[in-house]
Amino acid sequence: MVSALEKNKKHKLKMQRQKERIDSQIAKNKLERGIILLLTGDGKGKTSSAFGMVLRALGYGQNVGVVQFIKGQQLSGEELYLKNKLPGVEFYQMGTGFTWDTQDRSADIKAAEETWAVASKMLQDQDLDLVILDEITYMLSFKYLDSDMVIEAIKNKPHAQSVVVTGRGGGATLREIADTVSEVKEIKHAYNNGMKARKGVDY
Amino acid sequence: MVSALEKNKKHKLKMQRQKERIDSQIAKNKLERGIILLLTGDGKGKTSSAFGMVLRALGYGQNVGVVQFIKGQQLSGEELYLKNKLPGVEFYQMGTGFTWDTQDRSADIKAAEETWAVASKMLQDQDLDLVILDEITYMLSFKYLDSDMVIEAIKNKPHAQSVVVTGRGGGATLREIADTVSEVKEIKHAYNNGMKARKGVDY
Repeated sequence: MVSALEKNKKHKLKMQRQKERIDSQIAKNKLERGIILLLTGDGKGKTSSAFGMVLRALGYGQNVGVVQFIKGQQLSGEELYLKNKLPGVEFYQMGTGFTWDTQDRSADIKAAEETWAVASKMLQDQDLDLVILDEITYMLSFKYLDSDMVIEAIKNKPHAQSVVVTGRGGGATLREIADTVSEVKEIKHAYNNGMKARKGVDY
Repeated sequence: MVSALEKNKKHKLKMQRQKERIDSQIAKNKLERGIILLLTGDGKGKTSSAFGMVLRALGYGQNVGVVQFIKGQQLSGEELYLKNKLPGVEFYQMGTGFTWDTQDRSADIKAAEETWAVASKMLQDQDLDLVILDEITYMLSFKYLDSDMVIEAIKNKPHAQSVVVTGRGGGATLREIADTVSEVKEIKHAYNNGMKARKGVDY
């Protein structure tokens, strides 16, 4: 039997080694600039993760811009919060509803272009610390927006600005220019087990 | 060459079919209750996703409780925001620092147990619509908390309450009892390319 004392000793040694590894990695990392973060994949959690980063940035009093492509016509919880409680955040929504609701390709393209005009301004705004481009990847896969144009604009963002891109897919070039890429995989989803989408959780 | 008109027509048909599929799925889903959501995997975005759901719930005026296990001693952006701007949210942090900082197994276990006491109360509170158990999975893998005890408490949450569990791993039983499981996979991380962790993005 291993005594509690021995367990504690072993633990301390292990943690000391782990701390050394972590500290040496931290010491090695010297680059400081805003990053490009891609949150992709088919699982739940991409948009909410972007909004969590909005909170994170606001905690330090940073300036934030949020642009949402493809959204239902009803405001979701995080959008209500943004509109009502966070007037300091620059917030723009395409707001035409889902593309299967509009069923109008030309109108969708026009709305996408108008929304992009707002987004591309934010991507040039030195004062914004964080810009969220929520679900913009669909604009690329539907070819509503030119992929090269969007990627160039993201690449040319101000040095200190971080950009978060969310949505399934996005293409190889977007993955390439991103500093961090997380793929959110759906292992299972309540929706496929007869559960209604839930206020405060799903929207 | 396909004319723009034809493209629009084809698009409309395709979207009509998609809308039918989506509407029929929505009509089929009749279950309404709070869900258990597990955000796991090694990628960036789990904690921020949980905090995004906090915003989502607050947008509807819901009541939220957040318990954070394993945290640095410095407050991160989302924690600062929660403490300073959202006094209505019940918020508790283990706050002993990372386990590789404390290097003290007995003290870690004691802190984990104290933190669990707060969490388990929240999991019995009918008034809370959403409870976040941030990074609790590590308490299970380190065996700081008894896995069966934690899983029973989550399973027995109030009917309408949703619970979000974050952290790598978590074990098979937790995956089983969860309604929705997303695995956030690290495709790449700026940290591995010499980039410093960034305020408002990483913490």
